Amino acid sequence: MQFFEVIKKSKKSKARVGILKTPHGDILTPAFVPVATKGTLKTIPPKDLKDIGTQVAFVNTFHLVLHPGAEVIEKFGGIHKYSNLAIPLMSDSAGFQVFSLGRKKKVQTKEGDEGLLLNISEEGVQFRSPRDGKELMFTPEISMQNQEKIGADIIMAFDECIYYGASHEYTKEATERTHEWLLRCIESRKRKGQRLYGIVQGGVFKDLREESAKFVGAQEIDGVAIGGVSVGETKKEMEEQVRWVAPHLPEELPRHLLGIGRIEDIQEFVKLGIDTFDCVEPTRLARNGTVFQGQGKKFARLDLTKSRYLKDKHPIQQSCACYTCQNFSLSFLHHLFRERELLGYYLATYHNLFFFEQMFAEIHRLIAKSLI
Amino acid sequence: MQFFEVIKKSKKSKARVGILKTPHGDILTPAFVPVATKGTLKTIPPKDLKDIGTQVAFVNTFHLVLHPGAEVIEKFGGIHKYSNLAIPLMSDSAGFQVFSLGRKKKVQTKEGDEGLLLNISEEGVQFRSPRDGKELMFTPEISMQNQEKIGADIIMAFDECIYYGASHEYTKEATERTHEWLLRCIESRKRKGQRLYGIVQGGVFKDLREESAKFVGAQEIDGVAIGGVSVGETKKEMEEQVRWVAPHLPEELPRHLLGIGRIEDIQEFVKLGIDTFDCVEPTRLARNGTVFQGQGKKFARLDLTKSRYLKDKHPIQQSCACYTCQNFSLSFLHHLFRERELLGYYLATYHNLFFFEQMFAEIHRLIAKSLI
Repeated sequence: MQFFEVIKKSKKSKARVGILKTPHGDILTPAFVPVATKGTLKTIPPKDLKDIGTQVAFVNTFHLVLHPGAEVIEKFGGIHKYSNLAIPLMSDSAGFQVFSLGRKKKVQTKEGDEGLLLNISEEGVQFRSPRDGKELMFTPEISMQNQEKIGADIIMAFDECIYYGASHEYTKEATERTHEWLLRCIESRKRKGQRLYGIVQGGVFKDLREESAKFVGAQEIDGVAIGGVSVGETKKEMEEQVRWVAPHLPEELPRHLLGIGRIEDIQEFVKLGIDTFDCVEPTRLARNGTVFQGQGKKFARLDLTKSRYLKDKHPIQQSCACYTCQNFSLSFLHHLFRERELLGYYLATYHNLFFFEQMFAEIHRLIAKSLI
Repeated sequence: MQFFEVIKKSKKSKARVGILKTPHGDILTPAFVPVATKGTLKTIPPKDLKDIGTQVAFVNTFHLVLHPGAEVIEKFGGIHKYSNLAIPLMSDSAGFQVFSLGRKKKVQTKEGDEGLLLNISEEGVQFRSPRDGKELMFTPEISMQNQEKIGADIIMAFDECIYYGASHEYTKEATERTHEWLLRCIESRKRKGQRLYGIVQGGVFKDLREESAKFVGAQEIDGVAIGGVSVGETKKEMEEQVRWVAPHLPEELPRHLLGIGRIEDIQEFVKLGIDTFDCVEPTRLARNGTVFQGQGKKFARLDLTKSRYLKDKHPIQQSCACYTCQNFSLSFLHHLFRERELLGYYLATYHNLFFFEQMFAEIHRLIAKSLI
């Protein structure tokens, strides 16, 4: 079975419509990959995913290893069965946690001091669990083992997501480490049926990004993920990094952009040839009471906690066909958020996920007509 | 339209199967009335109620008046439309809050001191809002006005729920006040189509309970609610109070037991002729990770937060047909509760509500066969 097929290319940009084929179903790309960190798309029961239109979700290896443990998930036959998620799933490698835990303690040396949350070496990364202080080791081999036990359809090579502000020297060293780790990931894989994505790093440096794209694209992998872009501080910086990388990636490989999914940015990245995006944006914002309204590039974020909605009889969006918009007013949603009622988090999350799916459906149409 | 019809009486006890007819549908009794305090059955989207089997829900006037306000709900055409709850609804009168706010400050006199949360007089009750300290007045007339604006199918007369430990003298006085208030409620009602229940009080005293049952049962009301029983400290005390009251209530009126719904108690009260029960038990316990297992009088409460469930592949209950039991293991539910994932609260609430509906369906069968 061919994993990825491009079915339509835009004449106006590098944007393309494709299909990713997995044992748990096909994914029409460009696709949004909502984040189900711990095996659950926060607040959403799996039975709702079909109506929402969610095609694929993203789980975090680091969090699942902390609880319930990769072994437990394996005993249940993998994360799909464990979590009752009957859609294609992607898992990350825990590489991002190297970055985010490291940043908290400003780890910039190879040899971490006693008490640091992590210690990066050629071998891998030693974590101190943020839960109980227990020491945990992540190496490319251990990441592969864990991801094989978890059993997502698409898995990621173990990488080091480089902190913002790192020097050219450190970035070069860390990127080379990521390349070495990719080779070890490919070497140590045992399980069939999973697709492996290599991760391009290189920080904010054009030469390193290009080099990384060429290196990763040349390996025996099923797809490429671009890492570290979400670490960028400006939109321009982020776009630049993808612009440097994209031309050097093999056309036939699917491209995933890690951690990016702001509405403002998605179309630009689609035009550069990105196929899939994971991001906590729609789900996390929803839980804070922020919901999306609008279409295409014209949209707004509504803050449901504002008193101005107390008497508002309109739905979030008149034209939206989602369960929330078809049945509930802004007034009721405001009431739920003001009273911290759990149903509010569900209804806002439902709408935001549906909204994103509609936005991607529109992107498919725009590409098919070469309008973007 | 006849409001209440008894369709089957047990030969073994006072238990009976009946039908309550409301503009929003029929309710087969005995029935459980889960509590949707602020217009939402915490975590459960209304679209799930049919599958769960919930026939009717209970909303709290006091809480809805505080937010979003009875006027807002009225502008939306009532609580059914506002909350998208297309099932029969009952509302309380705010009388219970007299008790629960009062108990916090041990208000035992008619004239509350400055700073007390409430002040009870013949006229009604003056509250200090627990939200912002603002003064609120509840009288029988205001309670009726608010309940008419909220628009539940079944409304409650304004009463004083007497604190535990009150003297015979205070209880007599408070019960007579409740009777006076019932007359004022009947007098001040304006809206057609809602059914009014009078509330029997009388505390822990047989003579006062009997007197109250006779008085309330003789008024122009559509049903009787027994109040203050949940305040009792022992099961025996609670049962006694219902046992004193029940024989003095008109057979043809439906009987609601306020605030009672522990599995252990329900069958006993059904045998005394109680038709409906509201209680936070299944929903509140669910949010704490406690779920029900078992059948009939043999049941257990499982605490999903316990590590013993980490690897447990069983559902909460093998024979349960609910969404949660059909799709999720104890291990996954444990994982959700340990990680405080919102989906856990939903899945546990779903199961507990479904469990209660099954229990009441069993009660209908037992009554039909005169087995209880």
